[in-house]
Amino acid sequence: MTVVPSPAARAADFRLLGSDGPARRGELVTAHGSIQTPVFMPVGTLASVKSLTTLQLAALGPEIILCNTYHLMLRPGVDLLEELGGVHRFMSWDGAILSDSGGFQVFSLASIRKVREEGVEFRSHIDGSLHFLSPERSIEIQNRMGVDIAMAFDECPAYGLSKAEVERSMALTHRWAVRSLAGRNGRTALFGIVQGGIHRDLRRTSVEELASLDFDGFAIGGLSVGEPKEEMLETLRFTAPLLPAGRARYLMGVGTPADLLEGVAAGIDMFDCVLPTRNARNGTLFTSVGKIAIKNARYTADRGPLDPSCACLTCRSVSRAYLRHLFVNGEVAALVYNTIHNVSFYLDLMRDIRQSIESKSFGTFRETFLTRIASGEAGSDAARS
Amino acid sequence: MTVVPSPAARAADFRLLGSDGPARRGELVTAHGSIQTPVFMPVGTLASVKSLTTLQLAALGPEIILCNTYHLMLRPGVDLLEELGGVHRFMSWDGAILSDSGGFQVFSLASIRKVREEGVEFRSHIDGSLHFLSPERSIEIQNRMGVDIAMAFDECPAYGLSKAEVERSMALTHRWAVRSLAGRNGRTALFGIVQGGIHRDLRRTSVEELASLDFDGFAIGGLSVGEPKEEMLETLRFTAPLLPAGRARYLMGVGTPADLLEGVAAGIDMFDCVLPTRNARNGTLFTSVGKIAIKNARYTADRGPLDPSCACLTCRSVSRAYLRHLFVNGEVAALVYNTIHNVSFYLDLMRDIRQSIESKSFGTFRETFLTRIASGEAGSDAARS
Repeated sequence: MTVVPSPAARAADFRLLGSDGPARRGELVTAHGSIQTPVFMPVGTLASVKSLTTLQLAALGPEIILCNTYHLMLRPGVDLLEELGGVHRFMSWDGAILSDSGGFQVFSLASIRKVREEGVEFRSHIDGSLHFLSPERSIEIQNRMGVDIAMAFDECPAYGLSKAEVERSMALTHRWAVRSLAGRNGRTALFGIVQGGIHRDLRRTSVEELASLDFDGFAIGGLSVGEPKEEMLETLRFTAPLLPAGRARYLMGVGTPADLLEGVAAGIDMFDCVLPTRNARNGTLFTSVGKIAIKNARYTADRGPLDPSCACLTCRSVSRAYLRHLFVNGEVAALVYNTIHNVSFYLDLMRDIRQSIESKSFGTFRETFLTRIASGEAGSDAARS
Repeated sequence: MTVVPSPAARAADFRLLGSDGPARRGELVTAHGSIQTPVFMPVGTLASVKSLTTLQLAALGPEIILCNTYHLMLRPGVDLLEELGGVHRFMSWDGAILSDSGGFQVFSLASIRKVREEGVEFRSHIDGSLHFLSPERSIEIQNRMGVDIAMAFDECPAYGLSKAEVERSMALTHRWAVRSLAGRNGRTALFGIVQGGIHRDLRRTSVEELASLDFDGFAIGGLSVGEPKEEMLETLRFTAPLLPAGRARYLMGVGTPADLLEGVAAGIDMFDCVLPTRNARNGTLFTSVGKIAIKNARYTADRGPLDPSCACLTCRSVSRAYLRHLFVNGEVAALVYNTIHNVSFYLDLMRDIRQSIESKSFGTFRETFLTRIASGEAGSDAARS
């Protein structure tokens, strides 16, 4: 039972512009611009996409980034963020922002916690101070941060729990979804989060329950939390098509370039992941022929660009030899160059994906891309992410 | 006895454009552009001005930067640098580069050393490996790195040595100066380095000895090595006017904004110092009313720019509150924003100094600047550098 309200009433209106099989080409209209989908959202946990100034980030052209309620409520705190005019003004970012609700981080980062019907009591991973998050509190914080898209507050069950435990958790997430919706204001869009672990029947139930509620979009949560890749993909492929076609579909926290292609193939519109920024910091760089570890001695005298197929500022201006030199000597500029490239790589991939859907050639594009990476990484120094 | 060769023969030709008392307004012509003096050279020890990409650096507009023979001979090594086309190409920098000769670093950083007439044997501060530097070797390395201006290889005596020891060291530096000159090629300018500690007669002797040699410019070395500020300034004021008027005068490794003003007042044309980049990394930021420690709690909710008088990218785009948030949370972007500002501050100061000399108002400018900083820092949180 899907509710179909007038699009004009939505804080984030999704328009389906085209498709190529299950792959969707769309547009999500927010108060801070229109977002072309499928889209990858760089992660700006603490109101900063790690290693980049906001101007450097803007030069890469992302239309939307993600920030984290859990991290920002601890530092600098929502009172300060609101006083300073919200996250956009705080970091001088004019594009759209989606905030994670804090659910996932509370269960993966906070050290001690008590989960009750009302919400979650947890200790900060920074200083051990006691905090409380509930659906009402999370939505209030997200509204006050002034983000464009807020996420419902959910419980994210660890991989390996019994099905009964996953079901109990999912039911709690559904009750929290109703309470999250009650806190929605008129300006901030709100997405629901589907749970249910790797169990098809639970995922189906979760979609049905959430789709009956008036969310502006729907996310698949609880994947890439430790389950084998094949189970992740199977659950993704099963769940995505069940989601309402008229709303944006967001696969949370996933993943590798190959995962993005699988997600788009399953009908996903939005992605986020720390992989490009985190890998940049540990010197693992994405290229059109697979990942490379820039510290590898083979790049010592390599005067070629990091990725000859890439037109990013890093690839246009410096050599692999220089990038290796900066990285092995701990220069801050290494993190900046690496991050510029990795984020560019992800954004370029999404641009190519969108074009391939428009030209009805997504299947070929996906196959070519995966084959090139697989052959490039075979026998190479490719680091595991 | 000053040798006056034809300017056309020099790899770095200095032209005196004007003056205001002892303060000089000049131009240094190199293969990588003309440098307006007085000039501050940001330090790019390892072929990277710390925390900045080369494009970010270029956007700040410096006409010349410094790199270090000692650091670059250890990492990545001169063979590699030469193979890759020199330091300019390695770091994609089109402006001019001056390299320190390694003398100062060998005596301040290297862990074990043996000083002989021939040169210095030392162990790398990184891995303890044994290396050797001599005038011939230092100049060869600097030539092969392809810099625009090389420095003679000198011994930099520690502060606190007896006058006899300083004199012995100075005599060695003079013999090494002659040997350094013998290694000069036609493309790389070579500057001599005046030593002599805080002793007037030794400094005078050192200037006379070096000025009799065909150097393209002259540096005052061995200051800011631990001596009291007043002794540093006294030695500077005594020594600078003795240097040949027709050559560039470079005060090595100095210093604070106030030191730059004192140096210009004494007739110095060129400066370098790690202060702006190092202070940026520890959160000490220069402003028109003195230094501030950005981590200070007073900036928690400060929505104003770092320095209202500054037009740098950092001051134009983010608030003190955001800069504090990034810095206290260890975000890499904090180092980038801070470095952009501090380097801009130094370059702006030099621009203002040049304009004040042109308009014959350097004395007033200097007084106003120092008074404003002194009153701003009185009772403020100003951090010591």
